[in-house]
Amino acid sequence: MQKILNVALAKRSYPITIGENLLSGFQHFKLQAGQRVLIATNETIAPLYLQTLIDMLEKHGVKTDSVVVPDGEKYKTIETWNSILTTLLANNHTRSSILIALGGGVIGDVAGFAASAYQRGIKFIQVPTTLLSQVDSSVGGKTAINHPLGKNMIGAFYQPQSVVIDLSCLKTLPQRELSAGLAEVIKYGIILDTKFFDWLEEHINDLLNLDVNALSYCIYHCCELKAQVVAADETEQNMRAILNLGHTYGHAIEAELGYGNWLHGEAVSVGMLMAAQTAKLLGKLDQTDIERIKNLLIRAKLPVNRPKKMSIESYLPHMLRDKKVLSGQLRLVVPTKIGHVEVMDGIDKSIVLESIANV
Amino acid sequence: MQKILNVALAKRSYPITIGENLLSGFQHFKLQAGQRVLIATNETIAPLYLQTLIDMLEKHGVKTDSVVVPDGEKYKTIETWNSILTTLLANNHTRSSILIALGGGVIGDVAGFAASAYQRGIKFIQVPTTLLSQVDSSVGGKTAINHPLGKNMIGAFYQPQSVVIDLSCLKTLPQRELSAGLAEVIKYGIILDTKFFDWLEEHINDLLNLDVNALSYCIYHCCELKAQVVAADETEQNMRAILNLGHTYGHAIEAELGYGNWLHGEAVSVGMLMAAQTAKLLGKLDQTDIERIKNLLIRAKLPVNRPKKMSIESYLPHMLRDKKVLSGQLRLVVPTKIGHVEVMDGIDKSIVLESIANV
Repeated sequence: MQKILNVALAKRSYPITIGENLLSGFQHFKLQAGQRVLIATNETIAPLYLQTLIDMLEKHGVKTDSVVVPDGEKYKTIETWNSILTTLLANNHTRSSILIALGGGVIGDVAGFAASAYQRGIKFIQVPTTLLSQVDSSVGGKTAINHPLGKNMIGAFYQPQSVVIDLSCLKTLPQRELSAGLAEVIKYGIILDTKFFDWLEEHINDLLNLDVNALSYCIYHCCELKAQVVAADETEQNMRAILNLGHTYGHAIEAELGYGNWLHGEAVSVGMLMAAQTAKLLGKLDQTDIERIKNLLIRAKLPVNRPKKMSIESYLPHMLRDKKVLSGQLRLVVPTKIGHVEVMDGIDKSIVLESIANV
Repeated sequence: MQKILNVALAKRSYPITIGENLLSGFQHFKLQAGQRVLIATNETIAPLYLQTLIDMLEKHGVKTDSVVVPDGEKYKTIETWNSILTTLLANNHTRSSILIALGGGVIGDVAGFAASAYQRGIKFIQVPTTLLSQVDSSVGGKTAINHPLGKNMIGAFYQPQSVVIDLSCLKTLPQRELSAGLAEVIKYGIILDTKFFDWLEEHINDLLNLDVNALSYCIYHCCELKAQVVAADETEQNMRAILNLGHTYGHAIEAELGYGNWLHGEAVSVGMLMAAQTAKLLGKLDQTDIERIKNLLIRAKLPVNRPKKMSIESYLPHMLRDKKVLSGQLRLVVPTKIGHVEVMDGIDKSIVLESIANV
């Protein structure tokens, strides 16, 4: 069983194919015999899936090279990006070559930015292997690398020609990372879709147990919701901001404790509860909705309390350095009920501090 | 006296303003009081024009930082690009900041690519200070850096919000670089415009003497011609190739002798004569047209004989490594009369070698 979602954007559209054992199938990659590809992957994913993908592509007449980079957010650097570009050049890849990103969000981001820059742009294909990257990075065309002075500060808006989501890859994903992906899934329910939130309350255990039908529906629906938001606002001027629910608080946790100690999804989980507290303090959200959100996060095995070793005051400097801050004004996305959010400017710092303290 | 050319491209259009003392005027920059800019320039241009530009911008309420990088093609690197990005971050520039490139083609290319990548794209303004960059880099949106394995291999197609061509900057340009710029000017006559070639034969001395009216007309017209070509083919799939007249042969000279020993325009001058020889050997160009081209290049103080220390055979490997080579087939732009070129595929190597030998 395969689901296909067509993402329609200004200049072109591309398909997201969702199903089992897709690494062993050819047509959803939208490649042709005689083409050349470079597969970029990491040291964790390479031993699990790289050979399967190479064998399948070579069998269909696609000439395949690969580059394996270290795994983890701390390697989302100019050096890793440059190593992909160097591999492309060293193997004489031309403008008609295609770059395949096989891995999680880091690989997708770095390889996507390499594809955007190589000879001013070659085609690329996303093969996201974590739940987080499947629901988050497949849609939107955001690619980036980190700079010592800021996360995701260097990059491009660049769309793939195809996204291949192989559900079978989730079997090797650590439980903690599966839960981190569910934080972004739950986010879509809170910001946009009450019924989807209801569905998640009913099926959260199916997702944790990797039930294929539940996963397939869930990922398809999240990509669909994100595609609607992105189509309305491709370069993040406005509406796209709602996707950042929990991210401004969450970024502070990640930055203060060091990326990787708390997974992105874990920080978003706690960040969403802080944003919910902000909404409550502003008289915009009921306690019953907060309880529903918190319970679903708990059932998804996500943290719901702030890290105790981090002081309440230490959040603010990070939050004020956020890319979405406009001239020193704090801008936050807050839920006003399950399935709806508002973007609020100029929130008082005392409210922010109290929101943090309450979680 | 100012001339304004509006360049209309798919998503947006921008003005090229051509005139004297434009660094002392504000409105053609399309900036507003309260905005922040970073000026990227090089060690040669900074002492000549940086303070003038800063003073004018600050006077109009624009907050200005600057970054000065080393001068020359060999600094068109990832490191220089990163140093511009680091300056943007270190000074807390946001998505609404504007990057100004003040200098020749190298600065325009590196800063343009930095603007395209900073926070996935900020606005930028080109202030080209050499004749070559004024006629060549102002239009087309090509930005790039070099990689040890290839020139211009990493970059983006990214359009400026405004181009400011201050003719007064040409007063400090070395004569040799002025002539190198004229090579690209003469190229436009050969590929697209017989009448413009006639005009150049009449006014080449005026241009060498920096006559403002002649320069203004000439630069405006070259930008106009290039804009027509680029508008028809923004991402270089097809027609844009005609702009590469003389560049495939010329690249070989630059690459073999080391970038900077022969200026780009000097290599293009000799390269155009080699392409003319190719056309003649294929029975497509008269000797009288070759003589006219050669005489104009001589009067522009450009080289018209190949570098003697470079063997005829040494051109081929470089020519086959060109970005425009498709699967090992040599593709050359050749003039068929003054004002017209053809793109030819699969030219026999013996013809290429004889073309080189004849120049």
